[in-house]
Amino acid sequence: MRLLAEFFPEFTESLDKMDELYRDKRTIDEKTYQFICFALSIKARSKPCVLKHFQGALEAGATVKELAYILALVMREAAGADDCWTHDVLGDWKEIIAGNIKCDCQK
Amino acid sequence: MRLLAEFFPEFTESLDKMDELYRDKRTIDEKTYQFICFALSIKARSKPCVLKHFQGALEAGATVKELAYILALVMREAAGADDCWTHDVLGDWKEIIAGNIKCDCQK
Amino acid sequence: MRLLAEFFPEFTESLDKMDELYRDKRTIDEKTYQFICFALSIKARSKPCVLKHFQGALEAGATVKELAYILALVMREAAGADDCWTHDVLGDWKEIIAGNIKCDCQK
Amino acid sequence: MRLLAEFFPEFTESLDKMDELYRDKRTIDEKTYQFICFALSIKARSKPCVLKHFQGALEAGATVKELAYILALVMREAAGADDCWTHDVLGDWKEIIAGNIKCDCQK
Amino acid sequence: MRLLAEFFPEFTESLDKMDELYRDKRTIDEKTYQFICFALSIKARSKPCVLKHFQGALEAGATVKELAYILALVMREAAGADDCWTHDVLGDWKEIIAGNIKCDCQK
Amino acid sequence: MRLLAEFFPEFTESLDKMDELYRDKRTIDEKTYQFICFALSIKARSKPCVLKHFQGALEAGATVKELAYILALVMREAAGADDCWTHDVLGDWKEIIAGNIKCDCQK
Repeated sequence: MRLLAEFFPEFTESLDKMDELYRDKRTIDEKTYQFICFALSIKARSKPCVLKHFQGALEAGATVKELAYILALVMREAAGADDCWTHDVLGDWKEIIAGNIKCDCQK
Repeated sequence: MRLLAEFFPEFTESLDKMDELYRDKRTIDEKTYQFICFALSIKARSKPCVLKHFQGALEAGATVKELAYILALVMREAAGADDCWTHDVLGDWKEIIAGNIKCDCQK
Repeated sequence: MRLLAEFFPEFTESLDKMDELYRDKRTIDEKTYQFICFALSIKARSKPCVLKHFQGALEAGATVKELAYILALVMREAAGADDCWTHDVLGDWKEIIAGNIKCDCQK
Repeated sequence: MRLLAEFFPEFTESLDKMDELYRDKRTIDEKTYQFICFALSIKARSKPCVLKHFQGALEAGATVKELAYILALVMREAAGADDCWTHDVLGDWKEIIAGNIKCDCQK
Repeated sequence: MRLLAEFFPEFTESLDKMDELYRDKRTIDEKTYQFICFALSIKARSKPCVLKHFQGALEAGATVKELAYILALVMREAAGADDCWTHDVLGDWKEIIAGNIKCDCQK
Repeated sequence: MRLLAEFFPEFTESLDKMDELYRDKRTIDEKTYQFICFALSIKARSKPCVLKHFQGALEAGATVKELAYILALVMREAAGADDCWTHDVLGDWKEIIAGNIKCDCQK
C-alpha cells in the first residue's frame, strides 16, 4: 500500500473526489486529457507519470506518432519559454548596455 | 527588435522553420495546441507565454471556462507528479524503516 | 570518494563549515529541519536527498505518519503555487479578454 | 473574482475542503506549517505565495530572523540537492573516465 | 531507434540542422560549450545529458577537476538564485512587516 | 540592508568566503564564468541574477552577440534535456506498447 493512502487516507480520498469531479466536468476528451498530462509529466520529471499517461493515451486511442508530436511540442515550448521569459527580462537591453538600468542584485 | 533576432537571426529563422514544420504536420487542432502551450507556460513560469497562449486559445475559439479547467488540471497534475515521483522513490518505505536500505548520500 | 571532495576539497570544507554554522545557530528543532529538507528534496527531484531526510526525520523522532502529512502538504502547495502564480499573471483577465492588454511576446 | 472560482467553483470548493481537512488533521503547528509553505513558495517562484506565507509566519508568531534562517536553509538545500543528485548520477565517475560506461544519449 | 526519430523524422532533422548552425557560428570553444551544457543538464535533472556532457568535456580536453569546479559553481548559483530572487520579492520587507503591502493571494 | 545580511550575517559572510575561494581557485576566465552564471540564472527564473550577469559579462569584455549565442544554447539545451530525459524513460516504448512494462503508478 502506498504511504499516503496508508497514513493519510482522508487526503487520498479527497484527491480521488477531486479526480471524479474533474472527470465529470471536464470539457476536453480523454485523449486530449492524456496528452496534457503526458506533457506535464515530462516537465515534472516524473517517470511513473510519463509511463502512466503514455499508456493512458494509447488506451484512449492515440497513436505513438501522436505522442511523438506532443513530445516535440514540449521540447519546442521549453526553448520558447526560455526565449520569451528572457526577452521579457532583457527587453530594455539597449538601456542596460547604456548603463541606464540598475541591477538591484548585490555585487 | 528582440535580442536574439538582432544578433543571431539564423537561429531565429531556424526556430521559425521548426514552427512552420510543426504547424504543417501537427495532428492536434489549434485549440488543443493552445491548451498544451498554456499548461506548459504555467510550469515554465513565463508570464509573456501565459498571456500569449491565453489569448491564442480564446482566438482559437476556446472559452475562459475551458481555460479555467486547463488551469485546474495543471494544478491537479502538479500535486500528482509530486505524489507519484515521491512514492516511486519511497516505494520500499517499509524496508527503509527497517534499516535495510542504505542511502548513498553523504552524511 | 565523491568527485567534489576529491577535486575541490576546499569547497567541500566550506560547505561543511556552513552546515556547522547552521546547526549552531538554527532556531528550529531537528525534526522541523528534517521536514523542511524532506519537502525541498521532493521539489528538487533528488532521490538520495529524499531518502536521507526521510531517514533523518525518523531518527529525529518523527513518525511515518508525520512524513506522509508533509508529503501531502508538498502536494497541496504544488497546486497552490500554480494557482496563485497564474492568477497573479492573469489578474486582469477581463481586460485581457476585452483586448486591452497587449502581450509583448512575439507572434 | 478569481478566474478559477468564477468558472470552476466546484474545484475551488474541493481545494477548500482539502485545506480544512489538512488544518484539522495536521500534526505540525501553524508556525512550522508557514515555514514549510514559505520554503516551497520560493522554490515555486511564486511571488504572491512568498508574500502570503511571509506574512502568515509573522502572524503565527515567527520573527523576521527566523524567516531569514529558513531562507538560508532553502539556499543551502538548493546547493545540496544539486550536489547529491549529481554525485548520484556520476557515482561511477572513475568508470566513466575509463570509458566503461556507455551514455545512451544520442550523439 | 528513438521514438522521435522514428515518428517525426522531420523534427529530428530540424534539430540536427539547428545544431550544425550552432556549431558553425558559435563563438565559444568546445570545452566551454560542454561546460555550459553540463551545468544546464544538472539543472534539467537529465541523467543521460549529464553523462553525455561529462564525457564530451573530457573528450574536449577538460580535466575531472575542471568539471568538479563547474559542479561547485552550479551549486553556488543554485543558492544564489534563491537568494536574489527572494530578496527581490521581499525587497520591501520592512513595509510588509509594517502591514503596508497587501498580498493579492487569496486567504 | 538585505534581509539575510541583517538577520543572519554569519551566513552571508560564509557565502562571501565561498565566493572568494571560488574566485581564487577557479580555472575558467571571468567571461566564461559570467556566461555560465547567465545561463543558470535563466533556468532559475531569477530576473535580478540575469541582469547582474548580463552586465557582468559585458564588463568582462563579452559582446551582446556572444550573450545572444549563450541564450540560444540555453534554449537548445532546454529542448535537448526534455528530449534525452524522455527518451531515457520511454526507451523501451515498443515493450510498453506490447504491454510488457507495468507502470507502478496508481490508477
